[in-house]
Amino acid sequence: MTVVQKYGGTSVGSVERLRNVAHRVASRAIDGEQVAVVVSAMGKTTDDLLALARDVNPRPPRRETDLLMATGEMVSSALLAMALGDLGCPAVALTGAQAGVFTDETFGRARIRGIDTWRIEEEFSAGNVVVVAGFQGQSPQGDYVTLGRGGSDTSAVALGAALNASQVEIYTDVQGIYTTDPRIEPKARCLKDIAAEEMLEAAQQGAGVMHPRAVELGLLYDMPILVASSQAEFGSGGGTIIRREVQMEPENRVRTIALDRDVASVTLRHVPDRPGIAAQIFGPLADAGISVDTIVQNASELQLTDLTFTVTDDDWERTQEISKPLAGDLGAANVLFDRDLVKVSLIGTGMQSGPGYAATMFRSLSEAGINIELITTSEIRITCLVRADRGDEAVRVLHSAFELDQEV
Amino acid sequence: MTVVQKYGGTSVGSVERLRNVAHRVASRAIDGEQVAVVVSAMGKTTDDLLALARDVNPRPPRRETDLLMATGEMVSSALLAMALGDLGCPAVALTGAQAGVFTDETFGRARIRGIDTWRIEEEFSAGNVVVVAGFQGQSPQGDYVTLGRGGSDTSAVALGAALNASQVEIYTDVQGIYTTDPRIEPKARCLKDIAAEEMLEAAQQGAGVMHPRAVELGLLYDMPILVASSQAEFGSGGGTIIRREVQMEPENRVRTIALDRDVASVTLRHVPDRPGIAAQIFGPLADAGISVDTIVQNASELQLTDLTFTVTDDDWERTQEISKPLAGDLGAANVLFDRDLVKVSLIGTGMQSGPGYAATMFRSLSEAGINIELITTSEIRITCLVRADRGDEAVRVLHSAFELDQEV
Repeated sequence: MTVVQKYGGTSVGSVERLRNVAHRVASRAIDGEQVAVVVSAMGKTTDDLLALARDVNPRPPRRETDLLMATGEMVSSALLAMALGDLGCPAVALTGAQAGVFTDETFGRARIRGIDTWRIEEEFSAGNVVVVAGFQGQSPQGDYVTLGRGGSDTSAVALGAALNASQVEIYTDVQGIYTTDPRIEPKARCLKDIAAEEMLEAAQQGAGVMHPRAVELGLLYDMPILVASSQAEFGSGGGTIIRREVQMEPENRVRTIALDRDVASVTLRHVPDRPGIAAQIFGPLADAGISVDTIVQNASELQLTDLTFTVTDDDWERTQEISKPLAGDLGAANVLFDRDLVKVSLIGTGMQSGPGYAATMFRSLSEAGINIELITTSEIRITCLVRADRGDEAVRVLHSAFELDQEV
Repeated sequence: MTVVQKYGGTSVGSVERLRNVAHRVASRAIDGEQVAVVVSAMGKTTDDLLALARDVNPRPPRRETDLLMATGEMVSSALLAMALGDLGCPAVALTGAQAGVFTDETFGRARIRGIDTWRIEEEFSAGNVVVVAGFQGQSPQGDYVTLGRGGSDTSAVALGAALNASQVEIYTDVQGIYTTDPRIEPKARCLKDIAAEEMLEAAQQGAGVMHPRAVELGLLYDMPILVASSQAEFGSGGGTIIRREVQMEPENRVRTIALDRDVASVTLRHVPDRPGIAAQIFGPLADAGISVDTIVQNASELQLTDLTFTVTDDDWERTQEISKPLAGDLGAANVLFDRDLVKVSLIGTGMQSGPGYAATMFRSLSEAGINIELITTSEIRITCLVRADRGDEAVRVLHSAFELDQEV
């Protein structure tokens, strides 16, 4: 049996923590499993290296930035292999390139093209645990590239797929995937499993445990992904498994509630309702590289329409710059900007086969006196935008309304 | 014209210093030269990484230690390339492996087997300065290896040879090669040039500016090596060129005086003078990996002989352990240990063709009341061991006696 484990920057952030990880890995290797471990850079290493780069060059070239960043994971992989050696567990550290992670040449956010596992297989045959520097790969030119956000998780899932691992285990500083953020709702419950699709929706709606990219890859290769705490005892049954298919739960089909605070909205009021209007608005935004999230268009009166869309806070200023003159050109009555909103989303694959979830959501919020500014839905999600100062309360109201604190 | 420059850890030890180096490199590139720059790790990085490794594992595995160490030079090469980019000078950073430095698989002190320059040539053709991570290469297995002591200098000279460079320039924190250590004799003069053979003898006799290994490589490939300060104005004519052949100086053939404080001596007194006795002594030392430096055997009386040899301070304790019982087995009267000695050496290729140097040396020391404990010579060197507390004075006496403070 082959297993791929991944430990994040916090889990390998000190010598003591590295030793803790080494113990966990060694206990699996002793059980006779072939273990590949993917590690992130220690603690704040990546930030420190980036700050150093910007000290030297305010706009550091991407190719050299990637070479610089890649050293962070090389250091932690070498140290973890050493710590394993100290426990008498034979281990080798491999860079992304040595582990056969081949990518395209998009520095800073490369995509994995394929993995050539010969070296890892060779090390497994020699009885070694393999520690792989995450977040990195090798371009066709032979250059160091980094995989961008969610990179180490993606490395782990891709290696899991290439090695036909039984499971990929992502160890992090949370216990798993919760019914909602436990910092908001202390009654939140850690889920035993979740469907990859639900996880993707949750990640896109602000649940930060795993980057969607790694989840997508797991879905594509039907690779179960365990998300668990790097502190919890192994075999304690803790953590959440992300699977392609999850047994439907008959009683309760809302699985998790996500809160996304990174929202800013733009409303064009009384835009003439004629064909092509949406393209005129969203074309220039797309050209500027601004990713538009929710779009809602309401029929208004006298063939005029109200059009609202949301963007992330990062894109907020440029969105204002672009949409203000645009509103004038389009003959809108006025344009409203609102940064004081959050998105609350119910997520669950079971919701598509059962009615009444939306009604319960709206009623519960209404009973709590929380006004809904905007509603959007997907097949497995219902999202309401509410005032930012009511966001946490909305999460708690819904968590209770859908009885997510109850074991099912 | 291609030139290879090498900057040591102190020269790239801070963002400010990196910028200074970038200016120097850029000014050469603007002159139309193809510049390859070899860099060491910043400041104390290598020591820090090694300390971290030992925290994790008191006896860190060599393979992973090399991977860890290699990151130090990768960081400084990436940052220097960024600093060059900031000056508008196009540059790429390459690891040892990317630069085509192929070695054997002796982790920690690998030997360079060959250099495949295709990538560097390609980058030169694209108009880039190439910044190469020194001290490292790639093993036949595709692993990261470090070259051991003198590694970055060796990288630079090897690259110079492979690229048919006009010159290899080693920039460091001294002005060049001196007639003797200026901290001992303030009248010491920086030499314009020195023969590689003289440099080798000086390095072996304690002059620390360059590791003999890089000098040997320069000698082998007839590659001139400039040693100069990374602070001095370029083109100021400063620094010392190490060449295979140096024009003989008619008046003064002592070129430099070296002082080596890293000496401990062992004397076996009244050893029976029979064949094979030396092998019986030095065999066990060699087996223990102890490198014996000077060996002097004096005829004594009644077919007994006194045998003295020196080792470095590092090997001192093990040498004692081995030689004490050995002295008994061999029937020596007694064994004397002395750590309170230093070696003072006159070095100059010209000395082999002219007599009288030894006599002048002995007379000068004698007139200063400095006792000579031991004398050894090579073709281009005369060495005296004197008491440690008289070493500096001996250097000054000889520097003056051979008029090394005079321009020739």
